[in-house]
Amino acid sequence: MSELILPLEKLVEQFRRLPGIGKKTAVRLALACLDGDLAERFSAALLDAKREISECRICGNMCVGEICSVCANENRDHAVICVVEDVRSVMAIEKAGAYTGTYHVLGGLLSPMRGVNAEDLHIESLLSRIREGGVSEVLVATNATVEGEATAMYLAKKLSGAGVRVSRLAYGIPVGADLEYADETTLRRAIEGRQSL
Amino acid sequence: MSELILPLEKLVEQFRRLPGIGKKTAVRLALACLDGDLAERFSAALLDAKREISECRICGNMCVGEICSVCANENRDHAVICVVEDVRSVMAIEKAGAYTGTYHVLGGLLSPMRGVNAEDLHIESLLSRIREGGVSEVLVATNATVEGEATAMYLAKKLSGAGVRVSRLAYGIPVGADLEYADETTLRRAIEGRQSL
Repeated sequence: MSELILPLEKLVEQFRRLPGIGKKTAVRLALACLDGDLAERFSAALLDAKREISECRICGNMCVGEICSVCANENRDHAVICVVEDVRSVMAIEKAGAYTGTYHVLGGLLSPMRGVNAEDLHIESLLSRIREGGVSEVLVATNATVEGEATAMYLAKKLSGAGVRVSRLAYGIPVGADLEYADETTLRRAIEGRQSL
Repeated sequence: MSELILPLEKLVEQFRRLPGIGKKTAVRLALACLDGDLAERFSAALLDAKREISECRICGNMCVGEICSVCANENRDHAVICVVEDVRSVMAIEKAGAYTGTYHVLGGLLSPMRGVNAEDLHIESLLSRIREGGVSEVLVATNATVEGEATAMYLAKKLSGAGVRVSRLAYGIPVGADLEYADETTLRRAIEGRQSL
């Protein structure tokens, strides 16, 4: 028992492939899976999700079927495309409830260091959506990280001359935050982007 | 998209049944499962683990087959039985590497509040192991919580007169800890249990 028994070890290995799960947590979760009918239901949910969930053929968002609920929604503003890194960003923006346009999921961010180049992202499909017409604005909503910034810059250059307005999420002080604790870069950006009252 | 799509929602539900996994983490883990062949391998590992792992018919420890590796090991001291709450305690003690006896897994702790009574734990099988003879000591190694203490007390009473020595893990200052930060109860127990140098 100084080593885990093999079937448990194999299950722990799968848990460790998930983000943010270390060895100790993986063992705890794997043991919990042996209780009751959890293993069977879990296994079925995994296979169902994998089989039923696909990428929207327009925007790359997660969906059941061919087109996601946003692209299929006639009440959304199809003239505005919000470009995001992944599905989690879509979820976050939808949760905020302030956006009424459509999305385009890149499937990652440019990162030469990790070997992710423009052709690995869904940029070509974004350009062809714009070429088809009817798009007036592209709102780039990549994360405020170095890679997110680089991707936004690349897209801005790529889209210049395409006849669409290219915008970026505003930088600034998070709502509810104390100025004293804001980092200098954020504070500088907030001052540069100040708005009239 | 303000709600999750159904197959994802169902997978998130399964993750949320695991200990310490909240809504946000569950969504992150569920999304990660859709990458590559993770869902298929994960699902197979779950079903394999559930099918192959059973309880040792002697001590209740986790095993593949009928008897666990500790009970099957002739080099262990079968005259000493360490009584623990669950398989995780067995793992922790085995990892410490200082114990050479066998185990008995109770499968829980007494908790009238949560409706866990003596007959819900593997106490009868412990008593019958002792009645079979050859056991000289029972080391109670339940957690140092209220429920762990209550269970230890119950066992001590139940085993009095059974002709075995009943012992308990020592309480005291954790190795490496600063006295200043030890709580009063622990410190008092450490003083009461002081040992000659």
